[in-house]
Amino acid sequence: MFKRIGIFGKYDGIACWDTINRLLQHLLSHDKTVLLDSASCADFPHQRYGVEVIDRLELVKHIDIAIVVGGDGTFLDVARSVVDHDIPILGINLGRLGFLTDISPNEMLNTLDEVMVGECEYEQRNLIHVQIRKDGKLEFDQLALNDVVIHKTDSPRMIEFETEVDGRFLNTQRSDGMIIATPTGSTAYALSAGGPILDPRLDVLSLVSVNPHTMSTRPYVIPGSSVVRIYPHKNCNGMAHIICDGQLTHNIGQGHETTISRHKKFIQMIHPKGHDHFELLRAKLRWGDKL
Amino acid sequence: MFKRIGIFGKYDGIACWDTINRLLQHLLSHDKTVLLDSASCADFPHQRYGVEVIDRLELVKHIDIAIVVGGDGTFLDVARSVVDHDIPILGINLGRLGFLTDISPNEMLNTLDEVMVGECEYEQRNLIHVQIRKDGKLEFDQLALNDVVIHKTDSPRMIEFETEVDGRFLNTQRSDGMIIATPTGSTAYALSAGGPILDPRLDVLSLVSVNPHTMSTRPYVIPGSSVVRIYPHKNCNGMAHIICDGQLTHNIGQGHETTISRHKKFIQMIHPKGHDHFELLRAKLRWGDKL
Amino acid sequence: MFKRIGIFGKYDGIACWDTINRLLQHLLSHDKTVLLDSASCADFPHQRYGVEVIDRLELVKHIDIAIVVGGDGTFLDVARSVVDHDIPILGINLGRLGFLTDISPNEMLNTLDEVMVGECEYEQRNLIHVQIRKDGKLEFDQLALNDVVIHKTDSPRMIEFETEVDGRFLNTQRSDGMIIATPTGSTAYALSAGGPILDPRLDVLSLVSVNPHTMSTRPYVIPGSSVVRIYPHKNCNGMAHIICDGQLTHNIGQGHETTISRHKKFIQMIHPKGHDHFELLRAKLRWGDKL
Amino acid sequence: MFKRIGIFGKYDGIACWDTINRLLQHLLSHDKTVLLDSASCADFPHQRYGVEVIDRLELVKHIDIAIVVGGDGTFLDVARSVVDHDIPILGINLGRLGFLTDISPNEMLNTLDEVMVGECEYEQRNLIHVQIRKDGKLEFDQLALNDVVIHKTDSPRMIEFETEVDGRFLNTQRSDGMIIATPTGSTAYALSAGGPILDPRLDVLSLVSVNPHTMSTRPYVIPGSSVVRIYPHKNCNGMAHIICDGQLTHNIGQGHETTISRHKKFIQMIHPKGHDHFELLRAKLRWGDKL
Repeated sequence: MFKRIGIFGKYDGIACWDTINRLLQHLLSHDKTVLLDSASCADFPHQRYGVEVIDRLELVKHIDIAIVVGGDGTFLDVARSVVDHDIPILGINLGRLGFLTDISPNEMLNTLDEVMVGECEYEQRNLIHVQIRKDGKLEFDQLALNDVVIHKTDSPRMIEFETEVDGRFLNTQRSDGMIIATPTGSTAYALSAGGPILDPRLDVLSLVSVNPHTMSTRPYVIPGSSVVRIYPHKNCNGMAHIICDGQLTHNIGQGHETTISRHKKFIQMIHPKGHDHFELLRAKLRWGDKL
Repeated sequence: MFKRIGIFGKYDGIACWDTINRLLQHLLSHDKTVLLDSASCADFPHQRYGVEVIDRLELVKHIDIAIVVGGDGTFLDVARSVVDHDIPILGINLGRLGFLTDISPNEMLNTLDEVMVGECEYEQRNLIHVQIRKDGKLEFDQLALNDVVIHKTDSPRMIEFETEVDGRFLNTQRSDGMIIATPTGSTAYALSAGGPILDPRLDVLSLVSVNPHTMSTRPYVIPGSSVVRIYPHKNCNGMAHIICDGQLTHNIGQGHETTISRHKKFIQMIHPKGHDHFELLRAKLRWGDKL
Repeated sequence: MFKRIGIFGKYDGIACWDTINRLLQHLLSHDKTVLLDSASCADFPHQRYGVEVIDRLELVKHIDIAIVVGGDGTFLDVARSVVDHDIPILGINLGRLGFLTDISPNEMLNTLDEVMVGECEYEQRNLIHVQIRKDGKLEFDQLALNDVVIHKTDSPRMIEFETEVDGRFLNTQRSDGMIIATPTGSTAYALSAGGPILDPRLDVLSLVSVNPHTMSTRPYVIPGSSVVRIYPHKNCNGMAHIICDGQLTHNIGQGHETTISRHKKFIQMIHPKGHDHFELLRAKLRWGDKL
Repeated sequence: MFKRIGIFGKYDGIACWDTINRLLQHLLSHDKTVLLDSASCADFPHQRYGVEVIDRLELVKHIDIAIVVGGDGTFLDVARSVVDHDIPILGINLGRLGFLTDISPNEMLNTLDEVMVGECEYEQRNLIHVQIRKDGKLEFDQLALNDVVIHKTDSPRMIEFETEVDGRFLNTQRSDGMIIATPTGSTAYALSAGGPILDPRLDVLSLVSVNPHTMSTRPYVIPGSSVVRIYPHKNCNGMAHIICDGQLTHNIGQGHETTISRHKKFIQMIHPKGHDHFELLRAKLRWGDKL
């Protein structure tokens, strides 16, 4: 099925080279074309295998599937890079089960063999599109697969901001911030802040306030198609920043307006045949198994 | 638009007779046919107006619209009665704003005039269908607009039960119970138990555990089309009951299996033109208004 | 140090007989006098050893130390029985670490040898004294080491009740109930309901509401010397019960008044030398160990 | 009783000058000596009254009582300044009831007359002493009446730190931070983060984690006499700061160690006769009044 395979590792990548090495040998022995992501594999001894290391922006134009080797953070980063190219993505962890990198190094070769003959499951997940404007000028334009967070910066004080959903005023809140999470991100930072777990089949977003001053503020779940607009209240002195997936940051203050909407494309995740999301939840959240 | 109007009050109804009286006069003076629900208006002096009081099962066959006068509890009860007859429903409160009875007695006549000429908004809300079986035999078959609750009874102990979603095992939990709430019910009991608020535009359900023993148990939001199956764990000694909308109860124990799915019909709520659900949330949850 | 030793097992006790057997042999070989609790050891083959099985009310007059073999539930039950006789108590579990039965069967003989020569630690824990009156008449008079709970019974509705602390009105609440927990009970039911963990060195109580309707209701920590009075609100239709340690229950309704105060005696727990409560918390709550 | 009275306003003080003006006239007409705090009243037209404006460090040596006019923030700041001089303190708000500035401008003159003849109530509240050291060198040495917070700075990531209580390791946590709150501070930031309310009669502290990664992390209440030591975990890359009462900040990182203990003196708050803390809680948290 897949002919041209892109492999992406962790930024500080040496911990995943052994796994990438085994992957490479296996894929090459099955006559696949393999390309390595320069951001993570620049120093990998690729010459031995005669495979190319290419800049990510170029790489994504030449592959049919993205294989991520690393943790959930690596997966998030790669997912944002490949989503617009309709490239399905699959995550291999380094021994510690991830919500996104859910294939262990031990099972990866078997799983890949099955994926290559179409014996696998596909799952669509929504992403968030974040735009920050000041005086009408676009300053920041990024994607998030897990979450977008507005959070106070250094200041010991809470921030005060207003939220609008689909053009209607929701509320003014004083808090440490707010998380807008996708179902994918509902088990990440939003969970620490008291948000609900959202089934990955849902196209929704949750708005989860961080330490709100008003005690009746509660997580709010909205349609994935909603447009959320956030702007600092005019009395707000605290500084804030906007953070995508815990990785991309932009400072905002008075006059900044942040617009959050669903990205036009969904990411396509590949899971092994028989994948069970509930099993993943039970393992990661230690709910215990069936007695 | 609507010719035949059914009026439903509170069970212990005398507190709403004054409001019903004003409604009646107004509707009759506009040449509407009005029928009164016998369950709530049997003692109302209907002879003065020459309107009929009819048994609810019969009543729902002869009306185009249901007007509820009372609290949210009354609305829930009536909604379950009319949903299968495709009758839209509208709620008038007795002075205290409800999530469902959101029209005040002061505005009701104006609102009704607008509704009668189609100047209003319609909103679809999902309902839950609950079936309880023992040894394959159906013992209980009811609807819920707000929520279905499994809760321990008298016993001081927690209960232990297993939950399946769409045929897959979710978890075994020890807790005081679990709430399965619709978006409509997400601001009722589920909110007290720490559940998220679900936008009424969503066709989803939330599973909210009540005082779970395992601290990583969290509210879980699933598609409205999901089928949930709950059954006491085989080691569970505690007794439990299943409660629909806080109104309909059935005792269960070992061998009972409860199946929860979306009802085949949605209820159609009527709101005044310009209705804003966020305004309702701000008022009921005291979030404060825009400064 | 201790000459006369009382051994108490689980009610349905056969699971702990093997452990009791090993205990007995060890203690007798060290020339101790051992007495068995009839409530739990009536069927234990005590004749082999020539030890007596005695009714608990009598037993507690003749022992210097109480050894509990079982789970935390067993410990709670025995602690309430021995506290007025100034008998220190020590808990041995059946393989699963308890908050109270914190000595494993493997270490018990070593620990006992140390205890007998005074190489151990003592800890005082407060207990709750609960009295329920109707029309001035005392109906219920019991102790609790973990917690006293007021909880709705069968009724699907919340209950409404008023709380007074030290003669001053605290609040009227609508909820499923309230837990009054000691530090000992703060890691039991109160924890599931969102209560704080209270250091066992503290002589305080926490009031933890169960699913309160008002969202700003929060756990409240008061001095151990406080007197709490709870009575159903005069509009409250729901029925409730009062439960001590999840074991002793009394039904209450209109006209019942429940008074909660610190018991005049503290229970004296024995721990192995070097006992660390934080280690117990980390193990039971799975906080992870020092890296 | 009190002869020499110090008056303290808000930093940006003009909003409280009218109130201070009325206070001054009243006190002078009763032959009191009044001194004004230079930090807040430097620009106040004190010459009219012939009263002195003095630097705070000097001022606190010459007064018997401190009157704070402003919000809770002002009160916190003044309390830390006067505590070591055994000066009782009283808070007058500017119209909005505070937890600490609980006397309204309307009642202030009456209340003061009563205070002057000893018709009032005194309450002791503990304070926290915070010391930050690096390589044994003391970098920061401050007090807090409400709380000490360790919180991540700019970084989008959680921080990782270890906590020791009374020389014993409590846990390693990954979170946005932790709040150590006094009973006074238990209704401030700690409440937003899910901490319990602590009765002001208690000499305890609560440790409240902010968005902890481990879901079984819970607020922990310890004796006021405990010594808490916090230090970044050696793998922690995030930067953090320590904040006293939301007002005094110090940046910390690898190698910094923060020690938190009870301050050697308690602050003495003055309340009007018949003061009821529960009434304050009901008003501020909108619990509703007795029906």
